[in-house]
Amino acid sequence: MITRLSQLFLRTLRDDPADAEVPSHKLLVRAGYVRRIAPGVYSWLPLGLKVLREVERVVREEMDAIGAQEILLPALLPRDPYETSNRWTEYGQGLFRLKDRKGNDYLLGPTHEELFALTVKGEYNSYKDFPVTLYQVQTKYRDEERPRAGILRGREFVMKDSYSFDLTDEGLTASYRAHRDAYERILQRLGVKYVIVSATSGAMGGSASEEFLAESEIGEDTYVRCLESGYAANVEAVKTVVPEPIPFDGLPEAKVHETPDTPTIDTLVDWANGAGLDRTVTAADTLKNILVKTRVPGGEWELLGIGIPGDREVDAKRLEASLEPAEYVLLTETDFANNPFLVKGYIGPKALQENGVRYLVDPRVVDGTSWITGADAEGKHVVGLVAGRDFTPDGTVEAAEVRDGDPSPDGAGELVSARGIEVGHVFQLGRKYTDAFEVNVLGENGKPVRPTMGSYGIGVSRLVAVIAEQQHDDKGLRWPAEVSPANVHLVIANKDDAAREGAEALAAQLDGAGLSVILDDRKASPGVKFKDSELLGVPLIVVVGRGYADGNVELRDRFTGESREVPADSALDEVLAALRS
Amino acid sequence: MITRLSQLFLRTLRDDPADAEVPSHKLLVRAGYVRRIAPGVYSWLPLGLKVLREVERVVREEMDAIGAQEILLPALLPRDPYETSNRWTEYGQGLFRLKDRKGNDYLLGPTHEELFALTVKGEYNSYKDFPVTLYQVQTKYRDEERPRAGILRGREFVMKDSYSFDLTDEGLTASYRAHRDAYERILQRLGVKYVIVSATSGAMGGSASEEFLAESEIGEDTYVRCLESGYAANVEAVKTVVPEPIPFDGLPEAKVHETPDTPTIDTLVDWANGAGLDRTVTAADTLKNILVKTRVPGGEWELLGIGIPGDREVDAKRLEASLEPAEYVLLTETDFANNPFLVKGYIGPKALQENGVRYLVDPRVVDGTSWITGADAEGKHVVGLVAGRDFTPDGTVEAAEVRDGDPSPDGAGELVSARGIEVGHVFQLGRKYTDAFEVNVLGENGKPVRPTMGSYGIGVSRLVAVIAEQQHDDKGLRWPAEVSPANVHLVIANKDDAAREGAEALAAQLDGAGLSVILDDRKASPGVKFKDSELLGVPLIVVVGRGYADGNVELRDRFTGESREVPADSALDEVLAALRS
Repeated sequence: MITRLSQLFLRTLRDDPADAEVPSHKLLVRAGYVRRIAPGVYSWLPLGLKVLREVERVVREEMDAIGAQEILLPALLPRDPYETSNRWTEYGQGLFRLKDRKGNDYLLGPTHEELFALTVKGEYNSYKDFPVTLYQVQTKYRDEERPRAGILRGREFVMKDSYSFDLTDEGLTASYRAHRDAYERILQRLGVKYVIVSATSGAMGGSASEEFLAESEIGEDTYVRCLESGYAANVEAVKTVVPEPIPFDGLPEAKVHETPDTPTIDTLVDWANGAGLDRTVTAADTLKNILVKTRVPGGEWELLGIGIPGDREVDAKRLEASLEPAEYVLLTETDFANNPFLVKGYIGPKALQENGVRYLVDPRVVDGTSWITGADAEGKHVVGLVAGRDFTPDGTVEAAEVRDGDPSPDGAGELVSARGIEVGHVFQLGRKYTDAFEVNVLGENGKPVRPTMGSYGIGVSRLVAVIAEQQHDDKGLRWPAEVSPANVHLVIANKDDAAREGAEALAAQLDGAGLSVILDDRKASPGVKFKDSELLGVPLIVVVGRGYADGNVELRDRFTGESREVPADSALDEVLAALRS
Repeated sequence: MITRLSQLFLRTLRDDPADAEVPSHKLLVRAGYVRRIAPGVYSWLPLGLKVLREVERVVREEMDAIGAQEILLPALLPRDPYETSNRWTEYGQGLFRLKDRKGNDYLLGPTHEELFALTVKGEYNSYKDFPVTLYQVQTKYRDEERPRAGILRGREFVMKDSYSFDLTDEGLTASYRAHRDAYERILQRLGVKYVIVSATSGAMGGSASEEFLAESEIGEDTYVRCLESGYAANVEAVKTVVPEPIPFDGLPEAKVHETPDTPTIDTLVDWANGAGLDRTVTAADTLKNILVKTRVPGGEWELLGIGIPGDREVDAKRLEASLEPAEYVLLTETDFANNPFLVKGYIGPKALQENGVRYLVDPRVVDGTSWITGADAEGKHVVGLVAGRDFTPDGTVEAAEVRDGDPSPDGAGELVSARGIEVGHVFQLGRKYTDAFEVNVLGENGKPVRPTMGSYGIGVSRLVAVIAEQQHDDKGLRWPAEVSPANVHLVIANKDDAAREGAEALAAQLDGAGLSVILDDRKASPGVKFKDSELLGVPLIVVVGRGYADGNVELRDRFTGESREVPADSALDEVLAALRS
């Protein structure tokens, strides 16, 4: 196919759009791939749509290869199934809700666990029918609070979501593995640099869960990795390395000190280093006790004390993930007033445990560790309070921040943090939805069996932005061959009639060989055309320019920037060879 | 590709679904092509999705062939552009409206004239850029009052809509013609029996407009056609054949008669035939005067008298189309009370004209026609009232019903009525939207030019139902090769291992030849398998059955029902030959 730039519905822009902050957004707009219609809502112009379709094709090929079957569910969905799963409420403001002319409630589907469970329930009723995996490539809707970066975080977007149904946990593990492998192949074919991180499950509920994060400094997800072992995890999913317990023998006794005006860790450390304790004290030697209120769904608010080493802050996301499904809030002044044993700035384990407050500590607070911590009285701290001897926590909690340099959970080295963009998620859902919709099938032994589900998503339109983000350079976009809007960008950079005819003949040759060609047949200057060829990002650029008089055309590699002259006669073969390499 | 029925996500149903009335709906559900999610909202299961994609492919190929360029606009659209065009209001309850978390108004796009006009305005600014035609294949939303017949009239559906932009009326005519021709090719390739009818434009506003109606008894659109000439039109668009005027010479004078108790046409005709008028009177000799109130947008309600031959009823749709953009309502008792010159059952032209009521007549009421009509007094009619001599209407109106046997407007014969399903619409929109959005481009002479638009739609998902509707028989679906979910349906109807292996080998051969094969490798009985092969509707069925022992397989033509044995050895060639024919 030959796409003539003189005809193509395309206008490239010299300037970055005012509302764009990240490179992919700027370039996709400047190159005429997408246009903004509303916040987080975009149009796909011809070249953008071609790339989107290529990404879809790759995703479909890899889904089909693992035996997943494509179907297509509606985006406009009735409220009922989402009421049954409780997600009508749980999704909060993230859901687009609407009413039809009769006043019935509908939503625009953000993800389709409910409908797939119901679809399988509707068709299948015997163990012989399983396992089955279904997928769709579909336009989805989420009313994001902060739509961002063009198509990177849109409110209308294209996603491939699939759902596996197995009768056994082993089956689910196999389906999960097949998807995980397929996602790796997809991202490799698309040239995406990614890491797979352990993830918490968010609002979905379930067990094993991993995210595919595209490496990117502009990503919104922070994760940590160990360069030595390749371990990677969402910050929420990092398990703290637990030190060995320390024998109590010979540990000095705990002693309460007068520590006036030391309500903060800094002031406490200053006091300790001036108190003649015969050692240098750091914040890591102190135990900071934070109070929150938690509530399990349907339950009452309860106090919870959290003890973490004083050199670390509480990471709200990690605490939230650890307490799920319970929620938590910070204490109010009224709470402190109602619980006078909580002495602000001087809270210690003792008062908490004496007053029946549940007390969880950082996993580093193992038996035998000795702490400087609050003595539950204004201006007093206790030194040498030993875990397991002087206090016994009710358990541990992953609430402390993870820091660069922390040991990797696999023991292979240190963790470093990085940023990424979530492009995929694989998730062993379990029976949450098959329970909710009472999906039963006849088992081999004649008794009903409840299938277990996996749910797997990959962001198709987001991947277009991610590829642009990872591959671009300062001149413009650069597309991997697999998703490029054309195989060759052929520039006519010579006003001579013979050169123009030669270029047309070469375009016809390339087309005849099954290649797709963008032919820049416009009357613009060579400079303008070269700039546009770099901006549009087709990986192989062929120039019919000055050298044509000597029988040569130029091949430019958009990725390396290298160019070389080849005889016009053998241009077709040279192009085919370059594309194969 | 080989699709194994033992693996395919498919369950065929023996019974018609309770909510289905039309054959296509029943069969598409029974054959497992679609499933209902909500009124007018359906899922596409694997085979249904394949057919849908094939229809999309054919549509795209023909769109690309006329140089239309594909883009993709969002379905979630901001209110503003539809406010500018006034369609936010005009669409009434047919529009799905919603608010985002910030309270901003959005709609789900039913058609995209506004956005395409804005898109072209955003990119193009010179006469050199035109003409341009853009299209999209997109999921659209209309909150139909009565969603119907499965995917035939859905509330979420797939449509191809395109929009041409030309600088001259001649250009628009050419773009319109190109689309019209492309639609003919699409419908021919899909095997759809259709007529093109002149259409009124509905709420769109503009000039030339034609609809593509698929012939179907279950269609909701009534149209008329002349079998002799091929003329066809929506009933609303039929122009009445106007008779020649009749000279006044020798016509008897009008005379008022006492006609007690003749408030209806029937009673009037009875009276006339007993009144010694020296001729047989029929309802066609009487002139019935109907009163309505009309109002142009923003104007006041006004009385309007309509005179039509007494043997015809007013066709509400024709009257509505004739009066557009004015609306009309029937008179209330209060209106009659306020206008005492309106004597119910005895209204005549005289009182209307004397009291300044606008009076429009059927085009058959030409000068010199003589009528029996009301004399504006209880129990009185006038006989021999001659148009053009005794009364002069303010004009004509196409309000009377069209009947089988009416002369065709092209003079070629008689009209007969039929029913159809609208599958396409081509429409010279003109400058309604380019005016609304002030789309100007630089003209060749340096002055601004305003492009003129055409708008063209074809119902992609509806076509799947239409093909099913037109092609099915009492055994099931029958797909034309162009859109069949597979090229061959291969049934293993023999438990013998050799036969099964032979079938597998043949499936592999067919696959190797680039054909798509549905392979019925289930353990069901041959009877069940044959029934399913008929229900699913692949046009060519190959059976590996009893004859396999003698080295034969059977080829069945799903359309003709014919079957023949061919040697298994040459089955591939026979299949290829059958598919080519």
